[in-house]
Amino acid sequence: MEDINERARTKLGTGRVADYIPALAEQDANKFGIAICTNEGEVYAAGDAQEPFSIQSISKVFLLTLSLRVYGNELWERVGLNPSGMPFNSLTQLEAERGKPRNPFINAGAIVVADRLVSAFATPSKHLRDVARKLSGNESILIDARVQESEWQHRSRNAAMAYLMKSFGNIDNDVDQVLHSYFSCCSLAMSCVDLAVALNYLAADGHAQAMGEPFIAPDLARKINSIMFTCGMYDAAGDFAYRVGLPAKSGVGGGIVAIVPGKLSVCAWSPALDENGNSVAAQYALELLAEEMVRQQLGH
Amino acid sequence: MEDINERARTKLGTGRVADYIPALAEQDANKFGIAICTNEGEVYAAGDAQEPFSIQSISKVFLLTLSLRVYGNELWERVGLNPSGMPFNSLTQLEAERGKPRNPFINAGAIVVADRLVSAFATPSKHLRDVARKLSGNESILIDARVQESEWQHRSRNAAMAYLMKSFGNIDNDVDQVLHSYFSCCSLAMSCVDLAVALNYLAADGHAQAMGEPFIAPDLARKINSIMFTCGMYDAAGDFAYRVGLPAKSGVGGGIVAIVPGKLSVCAWSPALDENGNSVAAQYALELLAEEMVRQQLGH
Amino acid sequence: MEDINERARTKLGTGRVADYIPALAEQDANKFGIAICTNEGEVYAAGDAQEPFSIQSISKVFLLTLSLRVYGNELWERVGLNPSGMPFNSLTQLEAERGKPRNPFINAGAIVVADRLVSAFATPSKHLRDVARKLSGNESILIDARVQESEWQHRSRNAAMAYLMKSFGNIDNDVDQVLHSYFSCCSLAMSCVDLAVALNYLAADGHAQAMGEPFIAPDLARKINSIMFTCGMYDAAGDFAYRVGLPAKSGVGGGIVAIVPGKLSVCAWSPALDENGNSVAAQYALELLAEEMVRQQLGH
Amino acid sequence: MEDINERARTKLGTGRVADYIPALAEQDANKFGIAICTNEGEVYAAGDAQEPFSIQSISKVFLLTLSLRVYGNELWERVGLNPSGMPFNSLTQLEAERGKPRNPFINAGAIVVADRLVSAFATPSKHLRDVARKLSGNESILIDARVQESEWQHRSRNAAMAYLMKSFGNIDNDVDQVLHSYFSCCSLAMSCVDLAVALNYLAADGHAQAMGEPFIAPDLARKINSIMFTCGMYDAAGDFAYRVGLPAKSGVGGGIVAIVPGKLSVCAWSPALDENGNSVAAQYALELLAEEMVRQQLGH
Repeated sequence: MEDINERARTKLGTGRVADYIPALAEQDANKFGIAICTNEGEVYAAGDAQEPFSIQSISKVFLLTLSLRVYGNELWERVGLNPSGMPFNSLTQLEAERGKPRNPFINAGAIVVADRLVSAFATPSKHLRDVARKLSGNESILIDARVQESEWQHRSRNAAMAYLMKSFGNIDNDVDQVLHSYFSCCSLAMSCVDLAVALNYLAADGHAQAMGEPFIAPDLARKINSIMFTCGMYDAAGDFAYRVGLPAKSGVGGGIVAIVPGKLSVCAWSPALDENGNSVAAQYALELLAEEMVRQQLGH
Repeated sequence: MEDINERARTKLGTGRVADYIPALAEQDANKFGIAICTNEGEVYAAGDAQEPFSIQSISKVFLLTLSLRVYGNELWERVGLNPSGMPFNSLTQLEAERGKPRNPFINAGAIVVADRLVSAFATPSKHLRDVARKLSGNESILIDARVQESEWQHRSRNAAMAYLMKSFGNIDNDVDQVLHSYFSCCSLAMSCVDLAVALNYLAADGHAQAMGEPFIAPDLARKINSIMFTCGMYDAAGDFAYRVGLPAKSGVGGGIVAIVPGKLSVCAWSPALDENGNSVAAQYALELLAEEMVRQQLGH
Repeated sequence: MEDINERARTKLGTGRVADYIPALAEQDANKFGIAICTNEGEVYAAGDAQEPFSIQSISKVFLLTLSLRVYGNELWERVGLNPSGMPFNSLTQLEAERGKPRNPFINAGAIVVADRLVSAFATPSKHLRDVARKLSGNESILIDARVQESEWQHRSRNAAMAYLMKSFGNIDNDVDQVLHSYFSCCSLAMSCVDLAVALNYLAADGHAQAMGEPFIAPDLARKINSIMFTCGMYDAAGDFAYRVGLPAKSGVGGGIVAIVPGKLSVCAWSPALDENGNSVAAQYALELLAEEMVRQQLGH
Repeated sequence: MEDINERARTKLGTGRVADYIPALAEQDANKFGIAICTNEGEVYAAGDAQEPFSIQSISKVFLLTLSLRVYGNELWERVGLNPSGMPFNSLTQLEAERGKPRNPFINAGAIVVADRLVSAFATPSKHLRDVARKLSGNESILIDARVQESEWQHRSRNAAMAYLMKSFGNIDNDVDQVLHSYFSCCSLAMSCVDLAVALNYLAADGHAQAMGEPFIAPDLARKINSIMFTCGMYDAAGDFAYRVGLPAKSGVGGGIVAIVPGKLSVCAWSPALDENGNSVAAQYALELLAEEMVRQQLGH
């Protein structure tokens, strides 16, 4: 871990911190952290692994999991399962496909999922925050109100998508309410350790480490991993699959979570992003980790 | 005129009344009216030519004219001049061209023009209504509050366009405020006679019939006619140009205004529309009129 | 005319000579010519108006006219009538609309029209050359074999379009044969005077000046003018209509033909093009001519 | 295996045999076969597993492997690595991305790969056939000349793609020559047993079963699996990943190859396809197999 930490830090200085909202633009580009949580419950961490950051699109994994728990396969009537082949905030495909987003990991898809949760829960963002706390075993996890407000102020693109979907009948609730819920989930602040522990259920056939009990069915965990593999890294999913070969989900806050099914979950974080919106140093760290694991496996 | 009225009425029963908002869906499909206003100030009318109807997209001609009066060619930094080749409410092209609509006669273009008027006037829809009254010489022209409210209730698609343009920095004002102004202009209720008289300035080198004075420069009148010729009939502009060969603008209320430069303005109206959103009977009436004019011209 | 010649020549040095095929790239950017042919048969010329140049896409007007003479309105089952809103060589729209090109003035549309002529005539390019000779009264007009060969060598893009249309069943003949015919028509070499005289039938209700007899019906001449107005200037049709307001057709050889219905036909030529593929100096010349005509008209 | 064979055969009668070329349309919709090849070299087969069928797009895996052996990562300058999100024969994305196909498993991508092999080998299709023979240990494998000729006769769509890429400089050789090579590879006739054995190198870290030696590097085998996972099932890659969760490649001949890395390769075949061009019964068989493997794994 320390070796990966050191080598990944050589990438600091490459890439650009997200600037589409002011609250994110202030992040320190020199931060880097990494944490692993094994299915046996051991946690290894290095660098700034305890520092909370804005999880942004990693929240789409929580949104999807909660929504599948409520709606099951019915959810797929509202959102697809296939790679979009387009930028994460594109409206072109959404229009051509009459308001049904390609998958739950592009913005439009996550907004539909948020709408489903608004229908199911009185306070969906509070519910999601509480689940994040339980899954990570960290009761101090908060929604960052400043990030949330900044998202709202700069909502135009997401509002355009939400209204387009509503025009096709694929949003049931008030657009403003859905966007508020969506932004509050994106604004959760969690650390590498929090996320590695919280998402370990995807590595452990649905068993939640910190809760000590099953969270979702084994089958469902595998299915979510498949979607992460094909759609988790914006429009660089194929490149990442080629280089790293693991199910993963990234966020513009600089975090990336990856899953080694049956073995472990890992979260790397560093704020500077490449042109696809994925953290440069975090990707590199996961690439090093994947190579190391292959080396060990072939060694046996 | 009576002959055209009779022959055009044979088309009643073809096409469908617009149903995208409830307030329009109630229109009587058996109505038909036509009115001509010559550059000498003579008005000929037949059928339901005195009955006010929702002018809808014909308001885009007023919006464009008022905005060009304020901003001149600067307006073209915000909106283009070319046919879109796409449906009138498409977001695909708008996204590809970074929020600059192709022309002022598609919805996105008219919303940008409305935003310009919101910046220029304290009460833009009242201003436009007053101009419509002066141009037509009819002080009883009103904005139909029921249509306006219905547009607002079903605003999702237009809201999506407005937010998309705002995300690219091409809307300066609050989206809700711009949409309210845009919908109130669409909701003006005017008759065939009102519109033929009001838009005669486009036939008369900018001279406003009912005001007895120049309203816009001759050059500008010709330019607006050119945009109507290339972009005035939704995505059937070319078909209409081929069949009728006149600058025209239609609305989903069933009205179509056409211009014979140097001679006359004409407005035909009948609520049932073809699949392109243009009135079946009104188009047919204008086709008959154009043929008759060619016949007279070749006869000399 | 001399005044326009002088003023238009100030634009020499702006724009770029077409370089997509070597044979065109060699043209002298400093050439400029203009010729007018009135409906009374008077010809006025200035500059390099007698020098033959590659007519390129202006041939699409001849192709369309000949095909309409053979097939009449049946032609419109194969090709549309509306502006495309896309670059002239785009395949995207052609794919979405299942191989039916938007209009006969984009490449795909002209290739379909050429296919129709291959079905109708044993030697379609010889037929078209002979018609061009008769219409212009110049028996020395030739197809430039070097340009034709250069087009064939660089046919990939046009071949892609032709094969795509064939895959949808919209090309009846062998693709190579159709392309050979199409390229030979594009490779006609004619002067400004030739073109102004030859296309005067569009200004004169179908009457061919040099032949002294009707060439097409008055109705058809008007309809072709309408298509030129909406679709004649590649994707700048609207800009040109706004500035000049006349039906026109341009070619990447630098020629532009414009029509003043009932009065005259005009052809301007200069090889350097703007980013839309239209000659900079020729456009400017036509703009000056249009302004002058408006000035004279308002003066009365 | 016999159980899967029986259950998969209940799906016979669903779907449609490919009819885009006559030679494929004649296939018997009631055929079904399945074969597994373990990394230990055991082969299990059921149903029509010994009957040769047209491998069609499964040849893209061979094309890619051979090309990566010659060019290594240089290949990715010519073709991308990401899901296309569009139908397998779309030109729209290819035009927007200037002739660089999204991945090697859509037609355009495989044609580029074929062009690379035409540059590298004197007789690329013979080379590929010989490799297929060695990898499967079956010297009787043939290219089906009737299928090949039928592909050539109906080449328009693929020719359109090839010419479009050539217009962007992404095809080096003569288009007809490249298409001939591409079609001959698609026309290889192999059985389920042939394919399961031949592609076992993807399950076995690059070690070729029938050759008894390494065929590609372990790293490369993993990378090809990743591309199959994200892009192998036409535009249903995500659906298949969700249901089956294995790297796979299908062909319109009705075959599907899937890989269980570290364990086995499997090929199922049945000619009737769903609307995405994937065999109905073969998909179902792989789904049953995947479920069974999960059951066994959780049982431990």
